[in-house]
Amino acid sequence: MALIVQKFGGTSVGSLERIENAARRVAQAKKRGHDIVVVSSAMAGTTDRLISLAKEVQPFPNPRELDMLLATGEQQAIALFAMTLQRMGVKAVSLCGWQVPVITDDVHTKARIKEIHTRKLKELLSKGYIPIVAGFQGVTKEGEITTLGRGGSDTSAVALAAALKADFCEIYTDVDGIYTADPRIVPNARKLEKIAYEEMLELASLGAKVMQIRSVEFGSKYGVRIHVRSSFSEEEGSWIVPEEEIMEKIAVRGITSTDKEVQFTIVKVPDKPGIAAKIFKALGDAHIAVDMIVQTVSVNGYTDMSFTVSENDAPLAKEILEKVAKEIGAEKVLMDPDVSKVSVVGLGMRSAYGVAGKMFDVLAKHNINIKAISTSEIRISCLIARKYTELAVRALHEAFIENDKVNFVGDK
Amino acid sequence: MALIVQKFGGTSVGSLERIENAARRVAQAKKRGHDIVVVSSAMAGTTDRLISLAKEVQPFPNPRELDMLLATGEQQAIALFAMTLQRMGVKAVSLCGWQVPVITDDVHTKARIKEIHTRKLKELLSKGYIPIVAGFQGVTKEGEITTLGRGGSDTSAVALAAALKADFCEIYTDVDGIYTADPRIVPNARKLEKIAYEEMLELASLGAKVMQIRSVEFGSKYGVRIHVRSSFSEEEGSWIVPEEEIMEKIAVRGITSTDKEVQFTIVKVPDKPGIAAKIFKALGDAHIAVDMIVQTVSVNGYTDMSFTVSENDAPLAKEILEKVAKEIGAEKVLMDPDVSKVSVVGLGMRSAYGVAGKMFDVLAKHNINIKAISTSEIRISCLIARKYTELAVRALHEAFIENDKVNFVGDK
Repeated sequence: MALIVQKFGGTSVGSLERIENAARRVAQAKKRGHDIVVVSSAMAGTTDRLISLAKEVQPFPNPRELDMLLATGEQQAIALFAMTLQRMGVKAVSLCGWQVPVITDDVHTKARIKEIHTRKLKELLSKGYIPIVAGFQGVTKEGEITTLGRGGSDTSAVALAAALKADFCEIYTDVDGIYTADPRIVPNARKLEKIAYEEMLELASLGAKVMQIRSVEFGSKYGVRIHVRSSFSEEEGSWIVPEEEIMEKIAVRGITSTDKEVQFTIVKVPDKPGIAAKIFKALGDAHIAVDMIVQTVSVNGYTDMSFTVSENDAPLAKEILEKVAKEIGAEKVLMDPDVSKVSVVGLGMRSAYGVAGKMFDVLAKHNINIKAISTSEIRISCLIARKYTELAVRALHEAFIENDKVNFVGDK
Repeated sequence: MALIVQKFGGTSVGSLERIENAARRVAQAKKRGHDIVVVSSAMAGTTDRLISLAKEVQPFPNPRELDMLLATGEQQAIALFAMTLQRMGVKAVSLCGWQVPVITDDVHTKARIKEIHTRKLKELLSKGYIPIVAGFQGVTKEGEITTLGRGGSDTSAVALAAALKADFCEIYTDVDGIYTADPRIVPNARKLEKIAYEEMLELASLGAKVMQIRSVEFGSKYGVRIHVRSSFSEEEGSWIVPEEEIMEKIAVRGITSTDKEVQFTIVKVPDKPGIAAKIFKALGDAHIAVDMIVQTVSVNGYTDMSFTVSENDAPLAKEILEKVAKEIGAEKVLMDPDVSKVSVVGLGMRSAYGVAGKMFDVLAKHNINIKAISTSEIRISCLIARKYTELAVRALHEAFIENDKVNFVGDK
């Protein structure tokens, strides 16, 4: 008999029929003798509809009032979810974030969970009830409703599982697990049986949209085992677990790509001490994060300097850089939006040599020029022309994964 | 400089344009130097839509979960209302019932307000904010969301005005005041400048749909002056005030009718002690309220007994009465749904003689037969055949109001 947190995303509760489907799953797990806590998102489309209503009123809605408005989406879903379970003869009680309570800081629309009180939940569980908790929302110490940002329900679920010391947390979604690459790009992509938090974090922040980053951080910090699976099938999904649970530290767990970055190049920068600092301080002051910095070898006292910023920051970055370029006497600023970043991620990279060399080799073989490189302990990323993205991902997948032996689901 | 509670009903906030119209009114009052607390209903149609969604899940939805679901309607409206005021440059903060808090008992879907904490509201007012409070909802001491029943936002508003000792409470609605009779029936009906709580209670419970009865009771109990007016015009509406404020205690303030009752007649009841008790106890045990009792003169030890019950209770009443009739040896039970109750209401009735006589006379003149009579201190009601309803109301209006001099708006 386990304690399980089951989280259902927006598509999994997108209609009364789907809520019924989700409730049936919950009822089955309860029947098997488990204690269940449900976390539900708003019905698919609700949050977007409320946001566009708010934007009709105020182009930049007051964050505190926006949270007040958006929190109703989950509240409706949990009430309907509880009613559905009750109709099936299962004892269930819905709870808003403030009723649990899930205490957050006061940064509206992207609040962070500070503490979770478990007394009420434990009391309900001990009386045989299934608590249906509204995901995505919390409350400040002062009693203000907050929301956790897009995908926040994942974080709610993992945090609740941590607070309750649940055996594991199931994330029911519209994909059936985590793949070695985006199956729409790589038809041979395979579902992973297990992936470490660290690997998932690199994949999530690099473009894999399965889980909110913060929820994985939470899982990692508190050691919550997370099972990502489809709400429309009985199949096992993928487990996100502590590194220690993964026996085989393969070099490359997955390949991912993102085209949400833009490359800037400042041409003919005078190669003097303090110049680079001036450029990056100006961007830092505007809260613009910079990645993949490349500086060419100095020729006649001049150098070219390139780096990437997120596409959201690009217009502001351009403005700032053109001002700075004038000040430091650089020739001009070039902006290249037609780039994308492909990455290979894997825990085993720490001990395996030659991953970088092999990656460059694979790209070179396909005549794909590498514009910049960045690395972490368990990741290597290359910036390439955007048109080569899919080709690069497929080629890297073939080289690192299809021709390698790893513990995929079904392999054993 | 006054403290005013302004309540906007569902039609007054039925679209973003209407919320804007309502917000403009609030902003104007604020600009004139008044302190304002807004109470808002859900946008028109929202509550009905949520109820039918719930009924799709459970034909008789769990009341606790229904309250959880319905409370989202007002929460959405207040967030949008606050945003609208903010866009106009007015400081505003929305508050759910539990955030005020408005403490109620735990009778879900028809909870009663127990206490209202004013600390937070007063703090916001003192900082120049306009609190936008969700009507219709409250919270139990245990932190459960409750709702106050249909029209509950009126009660929220009047109760808040009482708790804050506001100068008065404005009820913005889609009618422009309280009339001497339903203007759809009586084209000559006139808008009342003032009406006493007691009169309004009799009118409200007899079919005038302007205000929820409980809100008027609240106003009466705490002496809250209530101004019922249209949100679509600048015109003065009608004031509901303490009796003392009404100088002229005219005999008849208004005429009203209701066709929501059904008349039962038990034919040939043995005229013995305890028989009537037996009949009415059986109905009372089933929580069926009885009105307008008539007993014919006993003939040969038998009598006929008539009374009315609400049409909702009629099917159950019929079942019970047929059983009781058999037990007591009565001949049969007749049910007449084609009746309606017309009433004249006025404080002055206490001191004016002859109102009843004049009423019977007017009905007789139009050949309208009186099936039963009931009275209170300030009301006389006659049960008549339903087809005569409008004729009776018009005739009584003409006799008591059009041919009488009273303090109507515009008369002065």
